[in-house]
Amino acid sequence: MYIKRNIGWGLILRYAWKNLIIFTVYASIIFCLYYYLGWDFIDIPFQPLSVIGIAVAFYIGFKNSQSYDRFWEGRKIWGGIVNYSRTWTIQLLSFIDTGDQSKNKEIQQRLVYRHPGWINALRVQLRQPKSWALKENYAVETLFNKHNERNISCNETVGFVSVSEYEDLEKRVNPATHLIKNQALDITALKKEGLLDGFQEDQLQSVLEEFYNLQGMCERIKNTPFPRQYGYFSKVFTWIFVLLLPFGLLDVFENDALNLTNELKEWYAFLMIPFSVLISWIFVTMEVIGDNSEDPFEGRINDVPMTALCRTIEIDLRDMLDEKDLPKNIQPKNNILY
Amino acid sequence: MYIKRNIGWGLILRYAWKNLIIFTVYASIIFCLYYYLGWDFIDIPFQPLSVIGIAVAFYIGFKNSQSYDRFWEGRKIWGGIVNYSRTWTIQLLSFIDTGDQSKNKEIQQRLVYRHPGWINALRVQLRQPKSWALKENYAVETLFNKHNERNISCNETVGFVSVSEYEDLEKRVNPATHLIKNQALDITALKKEGLLDGFQEDQLQSVLEEFYNLQGMCERIKNTPFPRQYGYFSKVFTWIFVLLLPFGLLDVFENDALNLTNELKEWYAFLMIPFSVLISWIFVTMEVIGDNSEDPFEGRINDVPMTALCRTIEIDLRDMLDEKDLPKNIQPKNNILY
Amino acid sequence: MYIKRNIGWGLILRYAWKNLIIFTVYASIIFCLYYYLGWDFIDIPFQPLSVIGIAVAFYIGFKNSQSYDRFWEGRKIWGGIVNYSRTWTIQLLSFIDTGDQSKNKEIQQRLVYRHPGWINALRVQLRQPKSWALKENYAVETLFNKHNERNISCNETVGFVSVSEYEDLEKRVNPATHLIKNQALDITALKKEGLLDGFQEDQLQSVLEEFYNLQGMCERIKNTPFPRQYGYFSKVFTWIFVLLLPFGLLDVFENDALNLTNELKEWYAFLMIPFSVLISWIFVTMEVIGDNSEDPFEGRINDVPMTALCRTIEIDLRDMLDEKDLPKNIQPKNNILY
Amino acid sequence: MYIKRNIGWGLILRYAWKNLIIFTVYASIIFCLYYYLGWDFIDIPFQPLSVIGIAVAFYIGFKNSQSYDRFWEGRKIWGGIVNYSRTWTIQLLSFIDTGDQSKNKEIQQRLVYRHPGWINALRVQLRQPKSWALKENYAVETLFNKHNERNISCNETVGFVSVSEYEDLEKRVNPATHLIKNQALDITALKKEGLLDGFQEDQLQSVLEEFYNLQGMCERIKNTPFPRQYGYFSKVFTWIFVLLLPFGLLDVFENDALNLTNELKEWYAFLMIPFSVLISWIFVTMEVIGDNSEDPFEGRINDVPMTALCRTIEIDLRDMLDEKDLPKNIQPKNNILY
Amino acid sequence: MYIKRNIGWGLILRYAWKNLIIFTVYASIIFCLYYYLGWDFIDIPFQPLSVIGIAVAFYIGFKNSQSYDRFWEGRKIWGGIVNYSRTWTIQLLSFIDTGDQSKNKEIQQRLVYRHPGWINALRVQLRQPKSWALKENYAVETLFNKHNERNISCNETVGFVSVSEYEDLEKRVNPATHLIKNQALDITALKKEGLLDGFQEDQLQSVLEEFYNLQGMCERIKNTPFPRQYGYFSKVFTWIFVLLLPFGLLDVFENDALNLTNELKEWYAFLMIPFSVLISWIFVTMEVIGDNSEDPFEGRINDVPMTALCRTIEIDLRDMLDEKDLPKNIQPKNNILY
Repeated sequence: MYIKRNIGWGLILRYAWKNLIIFTVYASIIFCLYYYLGWDFIDIPFQPLSVIGIAVAFYIGFKNSQSYDRFWEGRKIWGGIVNYSRTWTIQLLSFIDTGDQSKNKEIQQRLVYRHPGWINALRVQLRQPKSWALKENYAVETLFNKHNERNISCNETVGFVSVSEYEDLEKRVNPATHLIKNQALDITALKKEGLLDGFQEDQLQSVLEEFYNLQGMCERIKNTPFPRQYGYFSKVFTWIFVLLLPFGLLDVFENDALNLTNELKEWYAFLMIPFSVLISWIFVTMEVIGDNSEDPFEGRINDVPMTALCRTIEIDLRDMLDEKDLPKNIQPKNNILY
Repeated sequence: MYIKRNIGWGLILRYAWKNLIIFTVYASIIFCLYYYLGWDFIDIPFQPLSVIGIAVAFYIGFKNSQSYDRFWEGRKIWGGIVNYSRTWTIQLLSFIDTGDQSKNKEIQQRLVYRHPGWINALRVQLRQPKSWALKENYAVETLFNKHNERNISCNETVGFVSVSEYEDLEKRVNPATHLIKNQALDITALKKEGLLDGFQEDQLQSVLEEFYNLQGMCERIKNTPFPRQYGYFSKVFTWIFVLLLPFGLLDVFENDALNLTNELKEWYAFLMIPFSVLISWIFVTMEVIGDNSEDPFEGRINDVPMTALCRTIEIDLRDMLDEKDLPKNIQPKNNILY
Repeated sequence: MYIKRNIGWGLILRYAWKNLIIFTVYASIIFCLYYYLGWDFIDIPFQPLSVIGIAVAFYIGFKNSQSYDRFWEGRKIWGGIVNYSRTWTIQLLSFIDTGDQSKNKEIQQRLVYRHPGWINALRVQLRQPKSWALKENYAVETLFNKHNERNISCNETVGFVSVSEYEDLEKRVNPATHLIKNQALDITALKKEGLLDGFQEDQLQSVLEEFYNLQGMCERIKNTPFPRQYGYFSKVFTWIFVLLLPFGLLDVFENDALNLTNELKEWYAFLMIPFSVLISWIFVTMEVIGDNSEDPFEGRINDVPMTALCRTIEIDLRDMLDEKDLPKNIQPKNNILY
Repeated sequence: MYIKRNIGWGLILRYAWKNLIIFTVYASIIFCLYYYLGWDFIDIPFQPLSVIGIAVAFYIGFKNSQSYDRFWEGRKIWGGIVNYSRTWTIQLLSFIDTGDQSKNKEIQQRLVYRHPGWINALRVQLRQPKSWALKENYAVETLFNKHNERNISCNETVGFVSVSEYEDLEKRVNPATHLIKNQALDITALKKEGLLDGFQEDQLQSVLEEFYNLQGMCERIKNTPFPRQYGYFSKVFTWIFVLLLPFGLLDVFENDALNLTNELKEWYAFLMIPFSVLISWIFVTMEVIGDNSEDPFEGRINDVPMTALCRTIEIDLRDMLDEKDLPKNIQPKNNILY
Repeated sequence: MYIKRNIGWGLILRYAWKNLIIFTVYASIIFCLYYYLGWDFIDIPFQPLSVIGIAVAFYIGFKNSQSYDRFWEGRKIWGGIVNYSRTWTIQLLSFIDTGDQSKNKEIQQRLVYRHPGWINALRVQLRQPKSWALKENYAVETLFNKHNERNISCNETVGFVSVSEYEDLEKRVNPATHLIKNQALDITALKKEGLLDGFQEDQLQSVLEEFYNLQGMCERIKNTPFPRQYGYFSKVFTWIFVLLLPFGLLDVFENDALNLTNELKEWYAFLMIPFSVLISWIFVTMEVIGDNSEDPFEGRINDVPMTALCRTIEIDLRDMLDEKDLPKNIQPKNNILY
């Protein structure tokens, strides 16, 4: 998640440089064909291009809107994880009462500590790349490779669960699912010991139900790409527009030059090159903006900062357990919070 | 569900070839009438076409947006099925305690196994074709016929329920509904045996209520076409625009040719043919993109991958029952997950 | 609900014929004034018309989107009725246990049968016409009059409730409300007899609460027109555009004719007539499409098929009661399901 | 709430007359400067006006969409009040059982009657004007002043609560809040008397929680204007467009007149006046349509008909209490239901 | 929150003056280059600018729509806080019954008073500035600095919680979270004393769960900027359009001047300056409108009036406790409610 109001030109160029070169070379070639070879037929009337441009802008608008929704839903789900982590903890802190202060502490700690185990395991599972993952140019990818963590195993639970539980998790297909299962078994065991009544078991099980819903919602977004027919044709249509654009601009600049009087007249159409690059960049950038929030769990520039959220939850929960040596918040790197 | 970022040109052509031929032949005929027969009146001013084009682009935008919502709602419902399948299982695993480990296992297995029976029965019921089903050209249909499964009976429950239950289901109008009913009867029977208390029966019945909601939501989308007046006129308006387009392009290219000086002038309007084909393809494709997510349970290129999800749930549930020989995940065919 | 993918031209013409005649006559008169009387000033520049056309297309887009939401909300509510009808039934089937099989049957049947009474009474209440109901031309209205049922009384409950209950319902302002009230009284009576415990009463009362929510949501849509300032001005603006259109098209065709060389030049503007009819039809149709889903409970071409849904629920419920002679599904008439 | 499909021209003119005069005078002045003083430079090219027009149409579309949502949310909330009023009543009717029929009646009546007291108090609180209230011209305001009721006190509760309770309410800041508080105190008192068990108290308290949610949602809409930066600039931009319009139309009509041949040529630009008035009216009306649903509780032409809904609820509840002399429904005045 | 219907020109200028000067100077320079230096090539055809303008207007529309949603969600959350504050209070008032009136009062007061402590602590936590906070020009910032409060500590809880509780809160990372935790501990303690039964504890804990949800939803909006790629490029594209605009307008005014006859012809293009300033202001204002509701908790002109809401809740709750000396409502300053 980028945390500054304005995006520096350095970062923008890191994304755009390749396209800017392509647009410039392409428009220059067309200008040369027109100007040096005298191919004055190499233009296209602009009117139909206007219609394509507006239709493409609509289409991109639709895509951006849905991509934003995917990001925002992802962020909402993690907000829900924050909220129910706190509810889970206060319910354990208030419900469990063995009469023995240190035994209370022990039970509460076991159940509260397993929770950051779950969120961290979930985080790592969501960070694994998918076959439809976005690939940017080399300059951008190195930026993320430098910062980003993509652990493979469920090692994230170490320190939060017992060794035997860890060994069991290692054999499971989806460790996060089994962490919640273990919470459920623990809760019912406490009830059988008489430490929880029916109402309290009911409330805690409801929170676990909520955790499964939140986990499943993350997995839904992660495992379902933004439907590729919507996403890919957005790119195709944008590039068709962008590739036709210099021909159309040549036409309008050419016509406009008819009114000019001085000797620059012949060179006037040359202005078409920077103008073409600019409009192309606007359209391609609009299109790419959506791409960057389609998949919100990848650890890229505008994704849900799951690592930071996991740490915040851990701090909150340990503060509630009245621990003293709380870990530090995750700090942004190059203005990006991961 | 298509699982690659980019859609190959082979696949695009498989969908588009027929239309591309139609557009080319149609535009060529109009060009010939104009050029060889000299019918220079066979054109239409482009300004009103711009207005139609923009209005049609809006209309398509609306349709795509609603179609996408239908797909995404379908996917959310199946996400909900995943989540509550897990909740159902952990509740059974933690609540049921006869004191006898193997008897627990037996009861838990009966109730957990009936669940994949339900999701698979539901899946097959949703895959049956409807009178408003989309039909593509032959090349596309063969692709899906090769991969897709459209079982007729509720045979999917074999192995998940007892033989007597299976025989009862065979006689029912809607087998999925009765599978949940059987779960409910089982749960209350367990309560009468004293294996569940009131709170636990309440929670399990709430999960069953949720299953009926999820099933009914699937059936709502399946049994209600995207209102045909919205969907069909989108196609009609697009084709009207596309059929008028070559006349309008002839007009703008003709006018543009007036400025040309060399001998190609007469042939300049010829450029209208590829340009016309291109714009036509863009508009028709935009329109068709929506069609492909209107009905999300058909087992087509971008539909909800129910077969894969059913398998995932089955694996999850059997892993929770600590089974060893878990089935494999469903693999995509030609980059499509069914 | 129209159940075919494509809408036949016969049906389209049934809706459109009157407007098509109006548009043709209107454009012809304007053409004659121009051509025969030589009123060459009777035209309007097209540029401002473009702006109106685009603004109107937006406005219609907004209206269609909201109208669609009203339909889809109506359909979702009835989907909810389907879901909770099943939940209601399985809860009764599993909870009620007098020890006497035939007494169980009797109680379950009374409470389950009253339910189709409620949905049918609700259906008929929703089908009564309102002061803002849509009126189409004669050809369309006869189609619906032929098929549609608009019973006046709560006779729909006959066969589902006892005679004395029926007589009580006859005197009530809103019979559907009282059917749910009777369910509630029955449930609490069963609890007092000890046939239901507190948890079970709680669950059944929650389902009744849900039924009141669903009924009230239907009544909200039924009793609140799509705000008429939004709906009516959409029509006004569309017709203003459509009435100005021939004047604007005359202008563009006239200008375009200046380039023509042959003797058809003078007649070229004649093309404005079919073109004007076509664009007018597109805009008016776009506008009318929304009208047809504004009020989703009227029993018109694209309304919620409540009659069919009521029958489906009845079949489902009676199948759960293990009845043998299940009624048949409602069949579509002229491809329309009511 | 306006209850006819079409809005009469009388009503439209009542809203529009002042603007129509302004537009006509303004366009005429510009025409006179052009025609009589020969200021042929007093025009503006239309192309940039097209862009402003389309941008403004978008902006208005956004505003209308959000305003509609505010109205529809308001209507949904009152729908919720209807639904839970019924649920409240059937729960009281079925739960309360003292063994003594007339004592039951008395308790039920006290709790059911306090409810219309609450909805009517809430209605009056919502009808009080705010500092950002819409003001129309004199002709429109007199229409509403004639019909509308804006009581000041909580006198609406007279007849629904006891005299002592009424006197207590008079001293409160927000009487509606205290009516629900009194219901809660009554419910818990009944439980202490043993007339309700824990489940039943729980359900009734949940309904009261729902009432507070519904009341608070009304107050949120009432106390928060549609953000004025969105609402006010919509008006500013529309009027800027409308004021520039005649200059732009002068330009296009002037250019169009160049092709005319007869003596009317000079007067052709005169057509700009009615055309300008028409487009101005369309844009200003589009903008005003949104204004009229921004604040849905004011008792204006398209607001939530709270008076009628309160009466409907009262009738429903008293019918459930088996009362005989039910009050009449509220009738619309001049086709407007308040 | 601005509370008048119309925004005064003084306030608008306070925001706009700097941009207006920039636009005027910029357009004047371009005009001078054209007019005095005779650079008649320094123009750009307007057609492609139209397409950019429309595309940018879409994009801004999307941004405004999402920004509005962020504001409205923020307002809804605080509406939820109002509602559940009341529910919390009536549950405590009706449930707690020690038999001793003054002991009841004491317990109720402790639990009800801690609640305004929580909302005020939450308010102050939400008012702390973030690294992506909006910065306006000096004239605007002084306005907010004059009125706005940005306390640093959790001093807001003084008077609402005991001294020892306050001292504990001072050491916490997130004091609001711990206030709810303390409520939970208190509730369970009351249950252990037998003052609450299981149902009542369940209900009160559910309200606390709701409070955590509401707090977490506020923190989600506060801690997640509107994705900067969407927000920042909106500004970039708008300014690109605005900077190209004078060149394009020069072109259209220049062409339009060809028809003029009198001596003003040469100066006609001068009109481009005010026109350019006007359109630039419209686009930049549209863009800035969204900026102002992106972050709804900052205490700026259109943010959620949390200070006023906190006071309203405090008054409501103390009125329910039958206190006499209720504090006054917060009054708006310069028509802005904070």
